[in-house]
Amino acid sequence: MTTIYPPRTRIKDALAAEREVSELCVKGWVRTVRRSKEVAFLALNDGSCFASIQIVLEPTMAGFEEAARLGTGACVAVAGTLVPSPASGQRWEVKAARVEILGDADEEYPLQKKRHSLEYLRTIAHLRPRSNTFGAVFRVRSALSFAIHNFFRERGFLYVHTPIITANDCEGAGEMFRVTTLDPLKPPVKEAKVDWAEDFFGEKAGLTVSGQLQGELFATAFADIYTFGPTFRAENSHTSRHASEFWMIEPEMAFCDLAGDCALAEDFLRYLVTFALNECGEDLAFFDERVEKGLLAKLEALATARFERISYSEAVERLQSSGQSFEFPVEWGCDLQSEHERYLTEKVVGGPVFVTDYPAAIKAFYMRLNDDGKTVAAMDLLVPRVGEIIGGSQREDRHDVLLQRMAACKIVPESLPWYLDIRRWGSCPHAGFGLGFERLIMYLTGMENIRDVIPFPRTPGNAKF
Amino acid sequence: MTTIYPPRTRIKDALAAEREVSELCVKGWVRTVRRSKEVAFLALNDGSCFASIQIVLEPTMAGFEEAARLGTGACVAVAGTLVPSPASGQRWEVKAARVEILGDADEEYPLQKKRHSLEYLRTIAHLRPRSNTFGAVFRVRSALSFAIHNFFRERGFLYVHTPIITANDCEGAGEMFRVTTLDPLKPPVKEAKVDWAEDFFGEKAGLTVSGQLQGELFATAFADIYTFGPTFRAENSHTSRHASEFWMIEPEMAFCDLAGDCALAEDFLRYLVTFALNECGEDLAFFDERVEKGLLAKLEALATARFERISYSEAVERLQSSGQSFEFPVEWGCDLQSEHERYLTEKVVGGPVFVTDYPAAIKAFYMRLNDDGKTVAAMDLLVPRVGEIIGGSQREDRHDVLLQRMAACKIVPESLPWYLDIRRWGSCPHAGFGLGFERLIMYLTGMENIRDVIPFPRTPGNAKF
Repeated sequence: MTTIYPPRTRIKDALAAEREVSELCVKGWVRTVRRSKEVAFLALNDGSCFASIQIVLEPTMAGFEEAARLGTGACVAVAGTLVPSPASGQRWEVKAARVEILGDADEEYPLQKKRHSLEYLRTIAHLRPRSNTFGAVFRVRSALSFAIHNFFRERGFLYVHTPIITANDCEGAGEMFRVTTLDPLKPPVKEAKVDWAEDFFGEKAGLTVSGQLQGELFATAFADIYTFGPTFRAENSHTSRHASEFWMIEPEMAFCDLAGDCALAEDFLRYLVTFALNECGEDLAFFDERVEKGLLAKLEALATARFERISYSEAVERLQSSGQSFEFPVEWGCDLQSEHERYLTEKVVGGPVFVTDYPAAIKAFYMRLNDDGKTVAAMDLLVPRVGEIIGGSQREDRHDVLLQRMAACKIVPESLPWYLDIRRWGSCPHAGFGLGFERLIMYLTGMENIRDVIPFPRTPGNAKF
Repeated sequence: MTTIYPPRTRIKDALAAEREVSELCVKGWVRTVRRSKEVAFLALNDGSCFASIQIVLEPTMAGFEEAARLGTGACVAVAGTLVPSPASGQRWEVKAARVEILGDADEEYPLQKKRHSLEYLRTIAHLRPRSNTFGAVFRVRSALSFAIHNFFRERGFLYVHTPIITANDCEGAGEMFRVTTLDPLKPPVKEAKVDWAEDFFGEKAGLTVSGQLQGELFATAFADIYTFGPTFRAENSHTSRHASEFWMIEPEMAFCDLAGDCALAEDFLRYLVTFALNECGEDLAFFDERVEKGLLAKLEALATARFERISYSEAVERLQSSGQSFEFPVEWGCDLQSEHERYLTEKVVGGPVFVTDYPAAIKAFYMRLNDDGKTVAAMDLLVPRVGEIIGGSQREDRHDVLLQRMAACKIVPESLPWYLDIRRWGSCPHAGFGLGFERLIMYLTGMENIRDVIPFPRTPGNAKF
C-alpha cells in the first residue's frame, strides 16, 4: 500500500482543507453507494469526524465496475484529487484516480443504510460505532475524557489510580461483585462458611464501588487529587440509568470545605459543557437535531447559568409549599426522589442548584456532621432534565466524631484502620465529589439509555463482546 | 479558615515565586521540626512538588510554643511572608505570622524522620505517599498518565474504555479472575458443573486481561484508537515485576502494518521519556541520586537514540554467534528470555531495538501470518536495563487465515463471532501494541518493584486498603 499511495489523510482534515489538493489518499468505510450510468458516488467515513466525504468515481477509472458495486460497509483506500464539490452541504469531494478494495461487505452486513433501533444496535455493539449515532457518542466520550484530565491538570491536581479489586465491603454504596479464583464447586469450607483465607487475596475480595476512600488517603499527601476509573454495582437493576460497570470521576481536596467543594463542582461542570460545545460541535448538532431537540440551547444555558445553593431544609419547605402533588410525599428526613429533584431545578430554581446539608440519617458515614448534630455537610448538584448529576460532601475529619458515625452505621473500626489513621495523624478538613461519567455523556448527548453511551455495556445477563 | 487566611498558595508555586510576597498562606504536612532557643523551623510539604518549604517560627509569634512542639506528620496552615532564605539550597522561606494546627501527630506516627525500607512502607501504603520517594513516584505516575492522553489526542486517536468484566476467556494472555454473585457455598449445579447461566451475567465472567480485541473493533470504525485502563492476571507470581492488577495502554491503528506499528511505538516511548525529563525534573533528579545512579543519562540517551530493527531470525543468529553463555540455550523457535533480550539491547545493539517476525508457534492467534507461513508480523521493543517494554503486532485481517490460526490454537470460532465479523465486513490491515504502564514508571523512576509504583498494589495474598 505504502508504495502506491500518498500517506493517508484523515477525512476530518480533508474536509477542513483550505484549498484543492492535487493528490491525496483517504481510507475508510463505505456508508452508501449511489450509481448512475455516468458516475458513481461513495460516501466514505473513517470515524475522524461525523461527516463522510463524497468520492466520485468515473467510468474511465480502472476498476470502476468493481468499485461501483461495493457494498455498504466495505473498506477502501482511495487516491485522487480533492476538488470543490458541486453538491450542497459539502465543500469538498474526492475525484478518485484509484480505488483499492481492502475488505468488501456483502448484503448480510448488519448495518445497511436503513435506520435501526437502538435496541437492535446494542446486539451488534461491535459494529454500531460505524453508525452516525454511535460514532458521535464515542467521539464525545473520548473528547470529554480528555477534558476531564485537562481540567484537573490545569489546576494542579494529581491523578491517582485507586484499586479496582478491594477487600473493603463497608462503603455501603451498593452491592459488590465477588472476585475469586476458588474452585466454584468445591470451595474450602471452615465452620460451615467459605474459608476466604484460602482465596487468591487471602480474604474475601470484590470489585470497587468507589475510589473515594483511597482518594482521601492521597489527598492527605498531595492536597488535590482526582480519580477517573471504572466502578461496579452488582445490582439487578434493569433501568435505563444503571449499568454494572461504569466510570466515575472523584476529586478530593485537602483544606476544602463544602463551599469550596461546590465551587469546584460548578467550575468543573461548566468547563466540561463549554469544552463539548467548543470541541464537539458537529456531533452535538446531530444530537440536537435527531436525539434531543433543544440540546444545544440547554447546554449553552448551563454554560452561563448561575448555580444556586439552597439547603435541604429549605428545599423541603419549597417543595411542601409548592402546591405540586408528588408521587412520593415530602417531609424533612426523607431522601429526595427524582421527581423532587427535577421539580427543584426546573420549577423552583429554573437552573442548576446545589442542595446542601442533608439529614445525617440518609447519608454515608464519612460525611462531616454539622454543628446542628443532625445534618451533614453534603451536597447534590441538580440540573434541569436530569436531576442529580454530581454528589459530594465535606468529609468527617474528626477522629472521635468519625468513630461515633461509624458505630451508628454499624461499621466496625477494625474494618477501616487506614481510613481512621489519616484522622489520627495530620488530619485536615477535606472534601470531594463524584460524577458518573456516563451520566455526563447522557446529559451532553441527549442519549437516554446508559447502554448507549458505553462501548460494551455490562448489565444483568449481559457481558457480551 | 477562609476568613483569617489569604487563599492557599501551593508550595510549588511559592517556591517558584519571582519576588517576595508580603502575605501568603501555605498548608501542608510537617516533615521535620528543628528548634533552637531563638527560633524553630518546620519543613512543610503539600505534595505539589518534591521540595518542602521552610517555615521560620519566632518566639514572638502567638502560639510559638505549641507550634514548635509539633510532631512530624502534623498538618498545619501557615500565614506569613515569603522572604529570601539565607539557608543554602532554597531560595525562599516563609516567616510565619500565624500557625493554625489542623491535625497534630504524635510519636506513634509511622513515618518518623528516619529512613524506612520499601518493604515496611508497603505495609503503610496509606501513608507512604507522604514520603519523599513515593511522593515522587506518584507525581511521575500522574504526569505520565496525562502525557499518554496528550500524545494520542495530538495525533487524532480516539480513547475507548474497553470492558473490565468480560465473558471472553480465550485470549490466552493469562489466568483470569472470576467475577460472580453466586452463593459461594451453594452454587447452582447442572450436570455436575456450576450452572453459570444462573450467575449475574448469564454466563461465566471474569476480569479482562487486555482491551485489545475490543480495541480492534473500535479501530474498524474510528481508524486510530487507544485504551488506557486496568487489566488483571490471576497468576500466583511473587516476582518484583508482576501484579494482579495493573494498567495498560493499547493503541490500535487501522490501515497500519508492522512498520507503522514500530514507528508509532518509537514516537510514543520517545515522547513519554522526553515529557518526563521536561516535566518531572525535580523528581527524576531525586531518583537519579537515590534510586538508580545514571537514570537521567539513561533517559536522555533514550530520548535521542536511534531505534534499531532486527528480525527474530537475525536476533537468534546474533545470540548464537555471540560466544556468550546463557542460562537458556538459544535456537530458532524458542521464546527469547529476559537474559537474551537484555543481551540484544545492551550488547548487540547498544540501544533500543525492535525484534520482529517471531515464530508463529510462540505467539498469539491474532498476529498476522507472514508470507513465509512460519513467522508472524509481531514486534517487541527492547530497551537497555529492562528488556521488553512494548509488544505488538499487525493483526490477522484475513478471515480464512484467522480461522485457520484459531483452529491451530484450539479456539472455537463460536467463542469470538464478533472478532471474526470485522474480518467479514470491511476488513482492513491493522496493527497495535501494548505498554504496561507500571513497567514504564519503573523504567522512568528506577524503582525495581512493581508494588512500589502502584498506589495500592494487588498481589497474591494482598488486597489491603
